[in-house]
Amino acid sequence: MPTPAPTGNRFEKRRAETRQALVRAARQILAESGDTSASIQAIAERADVGFGSFYNHFESKADLFDAAVGDALEEYGAVVDDLLSGVEDPAERVAGGVRISVRLAGSHPEIVQILRHRGLAHIYTDRGLAERALQDVEMGVATGRFSVAEPVVALSALGGSLLALLELGYAKPDLDFDLTAQTMAEMMLRMLGVPADEAHDVAWGPYPGSER
Amino acid sequence: MPTPAPTGNRFEKRRAETRQALVRAARQILAESGDTSASIQAIAERADVGFGSFYNHFESKADLFDAAVGDALEEYGAVVDDLLSGVEDPAERVAGGVRISVRLAGSHPEIVQILRHRGLAHIYTDRGLAERALQDVEMGVATGRFSVAEPVVALSALGGSLLALLELGYAKPDLDFDLTAQTMAEMMLRMLGVPADEAHDVAWGPYPGSER
Repeated sequence: MPTPAPTGNRFEKRRAETRQALVRAARQILAESGDTSASIQAIAERADVGFGSFYNHFESKADLFDAAVGDALEEYGAVVDDLLSGVEDPAERVAGGVRISVRLAGSHPEIVQILRHRGLAHIYTDRGLAERALQDVEMGVATGRFSVAEPVVALSALGGSLLALLELGYAKPDLDFDLTAQTMAEMMLRMLGVPADEAHDVAWGPYPGSER
Repeated sequence: MPTPAPTGNRFEKRRAETRQALVRAARQILAESGDTSASIQAIAERADVGFGSFYNHFESKADLFDAAVGDALEEYGAVVDDLLSGVEDPAERVAGGVRISVRLAGSHPEIVQILRHRGLAHIYTDRGLAERALQDVEMGVATGRFSVAEPVVALSALGGSLLALLELGYAKPDLDFDLTAQTMAEMMLRMLGVPADEAHDVAWGPYPGSER
C-alpha cells in the first residue's frame, strides 16, 4: 500500500523539519569556515532535502544564512537567560553574561564559531543576546547602577569585547578562560561606571546559577 | 626594437609593483565582500598581472589575503602613529586612537571595510594598531595611569569595542560619530581604571594633532 500524502499537522511537522534541516546545514557551514559561497543545491544536499523545497522556506541563500545566525543567537540567548534567571542586579547580569559566554566555547562550539565569523554584524540586531544586553544596560542606567551616556555605545563595547574574548580563546588557547572572563567582566563593569571595588566584587563572585 | 628585459633595480621595481598590484586587488576584494572564494586566476586578472607571477610572491591564496590584511593594518597604524606623534600620556593615546579610528571610516573606507570583515581575527597579531595599542596599555600600567590585571584582556576590550564601533557606523549611519567616538573613548578609559572625571576630561579634550 502506498504511503498516504501527509496532511494537517503531519504536513506542518514535515515542513518544519525541512526548514530546520536547512537551518542546521547553514549553521554548520557558517561554523566551519564562514564561507557562504556554497550553492543552494549543495546546501540542500547537505541538509538531505530536495532542491525545490528550498524556496518554500527561504527567498535566497542570504535569507537562509541570516536565519541560521538568528537561530544560533537565539539558542545562545536562551542559555544565558536560563543561567541568569532570578538575577536582577544589572551589574551581576552583565558580568554573568560575560562569564557564561566564555564557557559556551566549550559547551556550544558551533555557536561560538558562528559568532566569530558573523557576530560583529549582529551586535545591533534586535534578537539574541544583543537585545538582552541592551535591556540590562538600560535597566542599569534607570536604577543608577550604571553611568552611561549612550546605551548603544555601551552595547558596542560589550558586544565587541565579548567577540574579541571568544577570538582570544583561539589565539591563545593556553590561557585560563574562567579567569580571563572574570578579568573582562570586571573591566566591563568599570566601563559602565560601576566603582572599581564593586566591579571587582561582582566579577569575582560565584558563577551564575551555581548557588541555586 | 624589442624592449630589453629589465635588470637590476628595474627588475626589483617591477617585481615589487607586481606584488603590490596583487595585494591591492586582494584588499579590494576583502573590502567589497570579505568573500575570498575568487580563483587565483581571477585575482591575477583583476591585478592585471600574469597568473604565473602569483607564485613568485605568494604560496597560496590565504597567504595573499593575510598579506592584504597586514598591509591595510599597517597603513591604519601609520595614520594613527602620525596623528599621535608627540602624545605621551597613554590615556590620551588610547582616547586619540579611538577618535582617529572612527574618522578613518570617512577618509579610508577600504581599510574600515577590511577591519569589519577580518579585524576580529587580527586583534592578536603583532602588527598594525593592535601591537601599538598593547604597548600603550603596558605603558599605562607601568606608569600607574591604568589599572589592568591582564593587558591582553584589555587589548581584547579595546580591539573588539573599536571594531563594533566601526560596525555601528554602518548599522546606524545617522549617529554623530565624533560624539560617539568620544563617548566610547571615555568608557574605554574607565575600563582601563582611569578615574571617571579624568576619563571624561581626556576623552572630550581637543582632537589629536589639532593643536599642532
